[in-house]
Amino acid sequence: MRSTWRFAGTLVVLLLVAPSARARDGAGPLSPVALATAERLRDQAIGGSGAIDLVRSLTTEVGPRLAGSPGDAAAVAWGLRTMTALGLANVHSEPVKVPHWVRGEERAAIVQPYPQPVAVLALGGSVGTPAGGVEAEVVRVESLAALDRLDAAQVRGRIVFFDVKTRRARDVEGYAEAVPVRGGGASAAALKGAVAVVIRSIGTDHNRLPHTGGVRYADGVARIPAAALSIPDADLLAAEVATGKPVRLHLELGARELPEADSANVVGEVPGGAAAAEIVLLGCHLDSWDPGTGALDDAAGCAIVLETARQLRALPQPPRRTVRVVLFANEEHGLSGGRAYAAAHRDEAGRTVVAAEADLGAGRIWQVYGPRGDAAAPAMAAIARLLAPLGIEHAADRDDGEGADLIPLRDLGVPTVSLVHDASDYFDYHHTANDTADKVDPKSLGQCVAAYLGLTAAVADSGMMFRAPARR
Amino acid sequence: MRSTWRFAGTLVVLLLVAPSARARDGAGPLSPVALATAERLRDQAIGGSGAIDLVRSLTTEVGPRLAGSPGDAAAVAWGLRTMTALGLANVHSEPVKVPHWVRGEERAAIVQPYPQPVAVLALGGSVGTPAGGVEAEVVRVESLAALDRLDAAQVRGRIVFFDVKTRRARDVEGYAEAVPVRGGGASAAALKGAVAVVIRSIGTDHNRLPHTGGVRYADGVARIPAAALSIPDADLLAAEVATGKPVRLHLELGARELPEADSANVVGEVPGGAAAAEIVLLGCHLDSWDPGTGALDDAAGCAIVLETARQLRALPQPPRRTVRVVLFANEEHGLSGGRAYAAAHRDEAGRTVVAAEADLGAGRIWQVYGPRGDAAAPAMAAIARLLAPLGIEHAADRDDGEGADLIPLRDLGVPTVSLVHDASDYFDYHHTANDTADKVDPKSLGQCVAAYLGLTAAVADSGMMFRAPARR
Repeated sequence: MRSTWRFAGTLVVLLLVAPSARARDGAGPLSPVALATAERLRDQAIGGSGAIDLVRSLTTEVGPRLAGSPGDAAAVAWGLRTMTALGLANVHSEPVKVPHWVRGEERAAIVQPYPQPVAVLALGGSVGTPAGGVEAEVVRVESLAALDRLDAAQVRGRIVFFDVKTRRARDVEGYAEAVPVRGGGASAAALKGAVAVVIRSIGTDHNRLPHTGGVRYADGVARIPAAALSIPDADLLAAEVATGKPVRLHLELGARELPEADSANVVGEVPGGAAAAEIVLLGCHLDSWDPGTGALDDAAGCAIVLETARQLRALPQPPRRTVRVVLFANEEHGLSGGRAYAAAHRDEAGRTVVAAEADLGAGRIWQVYGPRGDAAAPAMAAIARLLAPLGIEHAADRDDGEGADLIPLRDLGVPTVSLVHDASDYFDYHHTANDTADKVDPKSLGQCVAAYLGLTAAVADSGMMFRAPARR
Repeated sequence: MRSTWRFAGTLVVLLLVAPSARARDGAGPLSPVALATAERLRDQAIGGSGAIDLVRSLTTEVGPRLAGSPGDAAAVAWGLRTMTALGLANVHSEPVKVPHWVRGEERAAIVQPYPQPVAVLALGGSVGTPAGGVEAEVVRVESLAALDRLDAAQVRGRIVFFDVKTRRARDVEGYAEAVPVRGGGASAAALKGAVAVVIRSIGTDHNRLPHTGGVRYADGVARIPAAALSIPDADLLAAEVATGKPVRLHLELGARELPEADSANVVGEVPGGAAAAEIVLLGCHLDSWDPGTGALDDAAGCAIVLETARQLRALPQPPRRTVRVVLFANEEHGLSGGRAYAAAHRDEAGRTVVAAEADLGAGRIWQVYGPRGDAAAPAMAAIARLLAPLGIEHAADRDDGEGADLIPLRDLGVPTVSLVHDASDYFDYHHTANDTADKVDPKSLGQCVAAYLGLTAAVADSGMMFRAPARR
């Protein structure tokens, strides 16, 4: 509580030194009363909020919740009962068909020159190996381009080891640089006759816990098993390769694809007042990969948007516009929920004022960006001023939005605003068994809620407009 | 290399400001020439040494090496070929009988109220569960004393969950406080009728990787299965218990004890000159627990003492006394190697001047201690002065030595000197799959070698004497 007051004190100072900027807001689409409410909600959330309890609840009561699994169904039930308990209105689920991939048993070992077991996880969607596994000589490459340079004779019948390191960064750029090998490595290697691929986990940690994530098989190319080695195991395999002796790997994956399953987006609202037909959409995804309890990815995001909605719903006066929370089904393994939502709500796209998704963990939010251009400029300026006391910079040069589940909505012309978390340690845990509730810092989560509350309260209780983003 | 010279420069300054202290050493049992050599070896090792290559070699070429396993035999072969390659003399193995426990397959899950898999490792030496596992209600206790306070009716037929947190500390004290529950918890719980125990891992990390370590069954008490949960899994189990609903756990351990196996201590020497019959013993243990590659525990220790011996062996003149390196068999699961060595070398105890074992990872050495009392005072003072430039304090109030393998030698009256590593992060990795070569910092490992070189060169090339430590 003391830190709350210290922070509140800092904010008072910040606000006192910029009174003219605040006065100008009042002259724009954001009324002085609405601004004051947004500032108050923002400041109250800093010291903590109910969000951490929501993270603990989802990770304890449900845990892993891969699309199609029993945990997925349990998560939908959790979403419905939690939204109801938080006082949201119009709580319901909307059906979504999802793929149903199961991991099965898996194991791997270097069998030559120095036998050692190695920790692996099949990549999501990988085919399994034949019973008894595959065993072959390893060919190590440092990039997709390096694979391209090899003759098929150097790859045929072998297991390709993609040894690509992930750079630590505050944003997603380090991940974005490394991740193409996860999606596309298997088909690239299969085209040259490889029998399987293993990748150095896309991650920035040094734990013996591999990072899963989806593989994307290209049409018309043989589907070969694909798995991630933990980073120390990738080091070990690289060290054995560096001896110059032939290295053989045994890989056994029990993965298989079952028939499509039923899941659901879970939806709830803070109904608006004078402009109730206009929608401010807050999203997160309810599913997770299977090894961890999906605390950072994405219980944290769901907690942020649910807590934001709870606090807006608890106001004595509803905001002008409706705030709709969508807990999307199956983001991880194909964006089923985002696609289904856009298809079912196509006719609302024109009156969906803006959408924002929380899906980058629980680190402090340090950047905001949204549509560029004259139409959105007053709104973005007001938002930037409102979030600046939280240490959030406006990246005025950025235009496109984050939030994978919002891609189909952006394609319908819905503007998005992105609140960017500090992801410096996010990729230490992302898609691993280590993504558990202890990794969520309640203080930084409070700052995230403060940012979402400030943003959402301001947009929902004003006439702020955003242009439709450019099609990508 | 630049950092080497910077550090060397610092040492020059340090030595220049205390010339009188150095002159006094020369008047004691350590000659000026021997002191100069010890200082030079110490200073050269700071910037790096061959020790990191030895860590990488053992962890890559052998990896896990639990007593009795194929890795154990491979480690003995590694020790022999490595000592030979390093130029040591009298390289040989000495037979040691070791227990042969195998882990088998294992898994656990909370089945009620909220089903979730949890990460477990059987404690070393645990009995297995019956086929199909055990399933029972969980009773959580925060200490052995708390278990004592429960009636047998509250424990009978249940799985006891020892939820004891390990305090992070620079020395082993945090570990020492928490670890009794690992050794003694199973029998304490069995006495009250428990069917199994699980413990919160004895460790200071937050990774989904349990810490194994030995369980000690009391004679005449039923042997029940014992396993460690990773720390996040212990958090999860505690959170389910905290709901107040009955919590049931399913535990399946495939562990079993095989007949005793053959292993060996591996011994090599730097033969002495004028006082070759006097022995300075440097130890480490060659075995490891099975989940990791035993990099910190204890490839690092072996690398330190082997590199120390290599450098002494490479001197143009041998030291007066013989330096003997012993890579002990099976420290982890019963101190077989330490006992066998003491039994086989009982007649040398009187002429073993001092013994030191490196077995606390690769953190910088920050403390030295050895026998108290008048007989050892000049030697300990000289050692303290020699190590002070490395940032090592002399704990003059401490008397007993560290190094589990040296216990049987101490019982024979052999004095020990302890060089204490900074263990602040050692218990993040200790006895886990995460104990891999990437956790060893080459720079701090270089400082460790510098300390062992300074100590060993000074003692081996002088007439320094130490009293026998008090029996414990």
